[in-house]
Amino acid sequence: MDEHVIGVDFGTDSVRAVVVNARTGEEAGQAESAFRRWGEGLYCDPGSDMYRQHPRDHIEALSDSLQDALEGCREVAASVRGISADTTGSTPGPVDRGGTALALLPEFDAEPDAMFVLWKDHTAVEEAAEINRAARSRGGEDFTRYSGGAYSAEWFWSKILHVLRGSASVRGSAFSWVEHCDWVTALLTGVTDPLSMKRSRCAAGHKAMWNAGWGGLPSEEFLEGVDPVLAGLRGRLYSDTVTADRAAGTLSAEWAGRLGLPEGVAVASGAIDAHIGAVGAGIKPYVLMKVIGTSTCDMLVAPASDLAGKAIGGICGQVDGSIIPGMVGLEAGQSAFGDVFAWFRDLLAWPLERAGERSDAILNALLAEAAELPPGPAGPLALDWLNGRRTPDADQTLRGAVTGIGLGTTAPELFKALVEATAYGARSINERFVSEGVRIEEVIALGGIPRKAPFVMQTLADVLGVPVKVSASEQTCALGAAMFAAVASGVYKDVESAQEAMGAGFDLEYEPRPELSGPYEEAYRDYLRLGAFAETQHRGQVTLLRFPD
Amino acid sequence: MDEHVIGVDFGTDSVRAVVVNARTGEEAGQAESAFRRWGEGLYCDPGSDMYRQHPRDHIEALSDSLQDALEGCREVAASVRGISADTTGSTPGPVDRGGTALALLPEFDAEPDAMFVLWKDHTAVEEAAEINRAARSRGGEDFTRYSGGAYSAEWFWSKILHVLRGSASVRGSAFSWVEHCDWVTALLTGVTDPLSMKRSRCAAGHKAMWNAGWGGLPSEEFLEGVDPVLAGLRGRLYSDTVTADRAAGTLSAEWAGRLGLPEGVAVASGAIDAHIGAVGAGIKPYVLMKVIGTSTCDMLVAPASDLAGKAIGGICGQVDGSIIPGMVGLEAGQSAFGDVFAWFRDLLAWPLERAGERSDAILNALLAEAAELPPGPAGPLALDWLNGRRTPDADQTLRGAVTGIGLGTTAPELFKALVEATAYGARSINERFVSEGVRIEEVIALGGIPRKAPFVMQTLADVLGVPVKVSASEQTCALGAAMFAAVASGVYKDVESAQEAMGAGFDLEYEPRPELSGPYEEAYRDYLRLGAFAETQHRGQVTLLRFPD
Repeated sequence: MDEHVIGVDFGTDSVRAVVVNARTGEEAGQAESAFRRWGEGLYCDPGSDMYRQHPRDHIEALSDSLQDALEGCREVAASVRGISADTTGSTPGPVDRGGTALALLPEFDAEPDAMFVLWKDHTAVEEAAEINRAARSRGGEDFTRYSGGAYSAEWFWSKILHVLRGSASVRGSAFSWVEHCDWVTALLTGVTDPLSMKRSRCAAGHKAMWNAGWGGLPSEEFLEGVDPVLAGLRGRLYSDTVTADRAAGTLSAEWAGRLGLPEGVAVASGAIDAHIGAVGAGIKPYVLMKVIGTSTCDMLVAPASDLAGKAIGGICGQVDGSIIPGMVGLEAGQSAFGDVFAWFRDLLAWPLERAGERSDAILNALLAEAAELPPGPAGPLALDWLNGRRTPDADQTLRGAVTGIGLGTTAPELFKALVEATAYGARSINERFVSEGVRIEEVIALGGIPRKAPFVMQTLADVLGVPVKVSASEQTCALGAAMFAAVASGVYKDVESAQEAMGAGFDLEYEPRPELSGPYEEAYRDYLRLGAFAETQHRGQVTLLRFPD
Repeated sequence: MDEHVIGVDFGTDSVRAVVVNARTGEEAGQAESAFRRWGEGLYCDPGSDMYRQHPRDHIEALSDSLQDALEGCREVAASVRGISADTTGSTPGPVDRGGTALALLPEFDAEPDAMFVLWKDHTAVEEAAEINRAARSRGGEDFTRYSGGAYSAEWFWSKILHVLRGSASVRGSAFSWVEHCDWVTALLTGVTDPLSMKRSRCAAGHKAMWNAGWGGLPSEEFLEGVDPVLAGLRGRLYSDTVTADRAAGTLSAEWAGRLGLPEGVAVASGAIDAHIGAVGAGIKPYVLMKVIGTSTCDMLVAPASDLAGKAIGGICGQVDGSIIPGMVGLEAGQSAFGDVFAWFRDLLAWPLERAGERSDAILNALLAEAAELPPGPAGPLALDWLNGRRTPDADQTLRGAVTGIGLGTTAPELFKALVEATAYGARSINERFVSEGVRIEEVIALGGIPRKAPFVMQTLADVLGVPVKVSASEQTCALGAAMFAAVASGVYKDVESAQEAMGAGFDLEYEPRPELSGPYEEAYRDYLRLGAFAETQHRGQVTLLRFPD
């Protein structure tokens, strides 16, 4: 009899669930469910980069997507052996002593500070700066050592500190804080004690400065030194972490009943979407996996022996076992990629939005017309830091720019410049890996954009100067989650075996055009100069004036 | 019996004619007529900054506007004493031996190179660079001395050289070249010999390097040295020029008949629109008159004795008698002002245009929403050089930029940054005058934008840090032309007397908000830094790559 596993992928806007044959990797059923409140723009303020999500959105979409996915393949439900969920991250949220996400309590139902603070929320810029100052000014261990030497405003401690400072009521009610992926695992396994919830190695190591070398989370003395408001929290969080191939428990009776699944279904420990997606797309040592969506997450694994304890500078994470148990996972990324294009689409949609009209066609029209322009750099030059810069050398307060604008500059030309800018940003990540001694043997792209936007991928290959492969699976995160479910439930002994049996391979490959190599080499140098200027501008008087916290 | 005069103002898009009581300045009739072919986008290529106008557009619109203006006040036609026309400039066009604009000949009817090369045409960037190199490399007189040391791609010789090089047929048929204002004067007076056409002191001095000190136009040896294609042309142009207060002749029988005007109506010599408008709006010594439309023209007059022969550096013109006979006219300007806003409107209109919908409301919506944003600099920072930079230190190859763009940046915020950028550009002109020893006692704005866009004018006052007055007349160019018609026809002895009797005064004044003085001072320094970067970027490798000629 066939064995099946379920992969669940929490994205920024929705949840996708897939039911997969654990022996063949074949998909038996799938469904997607959007976050309703999020879709209505609730609890967010783009002007101040505040993005919060209501846990009720998560529960409803999880339940709907699982039910819908199983609806289409009722006959295999009895053979489901395991389930695994990945989520965005760092997306922490406060829970009370009973493990309830605060926003599920009536008194916090409409309170953004009681919700999950989404990965792309940038309200904690000042807190990140304070954490970095504290990490650098103390004598002992630099806790940002494996976070590229720069702790991000997008991460666990920055966000917690920001919320605790701003909300006395959340401060009073939050017993502990949980990464979204760990909260989903606890939800599915029915664990309600925050101290017993399984904590993801991946999330803890990449987002919370957890490292076995210094005994887990940063020291109480360090955290209290950053701000006394953090005093005591460390003891209400966790000291141990688990890799995503390990079962956190079994599906609770409540969820098994709701979904019509058998008893004893293994629930894998959680992990962050991009890392799971990298596994789903076939990550191997020295292959750079680029998850390209609203932002990018660039991952590479290397045997620990190769790195010899060296901390790779300027990337945003280095964690033993975070991607593939047994290897060191290295993470970099761009804070905005598809979001840059979406920003431009929304800008052009402004008159339409005012007129109450739809603007769905704009992005495809821009892609089509930009692809008709002469190849190579010949118009405006842009800087892709519209959401700050994650790698190299994280600084979320930086901003984007466009130069070389003339009266004849058209929307497709500006769009092309923005696409090129995201490719230059990608190249600066590759160059950092190489300059830090980590070779890149192959580049694989996955996520929404690689399959939907050939123009973007061709430009990426042209600017990187190397071929870019695209996974044949459109849902590598969900597929990767299914692989981890298969390992956690004992179908396979390790992740590599699951990859081999269930992997989807590649069906697209973009080759760099040799005649564009020189022009893009020069244009990339221009991009670096523009970036260097933007940094000086930002660090000068303009900082205080234009980018208040 | 009342005496009347007619002022005619050729703008970029249309002609306006006003019939004015020469004693009181009161308007008896007025009409406007648009350029039909221009309105259809013919003979232009915005992508390469090519803007040409067909002389048939000019004749038709001139005739229609005059007939319509007189239609409304038939009873005063017999009392019309004079007529004066101003035009855009430098807008030269080729004529044959018989004074016919080449594009009026059947064989040149659809040939852009045979048409008037509109002021904002930037096809002659390379030719301007060559003229500047030639002017600097020769031993003797620097003919750009009174053109701010930088001859512009927007001016007479650059454009002629570009067209003569590119079109063998125009080269073979163009006996001479005529500024648009002189061609209109010749048309109205019936003069057909190019060697007898009156040539405007204003256009010749500001746009063609004519200066009495070096015997008129630049020497034959200089011109031939720039390019042999110019050999001999100097002798088929002119050596003398006239100020706009002098009659060029009387209205031809053909035009008098067509318009129902009496014999003997004086036709004043031509001049460029902005200079005439400055007179219409009440220019006086050390009052900076800013004509603000698609671009700006900033003018100031000073007694020659005050300047003591000094050439003001980095402005774009210094000509004895060009604005008010008897004083030195100084000219500066921004290559794009309203055009910057129009560019942004057109960018946002891109989806609408594709859908075949109208986009008229966008600009007013942007103005309204930008005015609702918090006052002062607090968003992106822009550089206004989208059409190059005219003053200080003309360089038409420079381009605009926007920095500080975040994912939350909205269309009104970008628009506000562009408005601020045009104000910073205006301030850099004021600072240049002052640093060159020319004081500014008052700032007066005229043209389309000052009356239509309070948000733009308030921002200008805030950034300049001085009050900005706006003329009560909406048609200061046409009114100024009427004043010159009154002087040329003998109603007044000089321009000052005509100004006193016919002037319209002021009805708006924008005061700078004191609390914004500090923030805008800092932001202006940021603007200068951004400009300095854009110049280095432009002068580096990026130049060859991104701004081919």
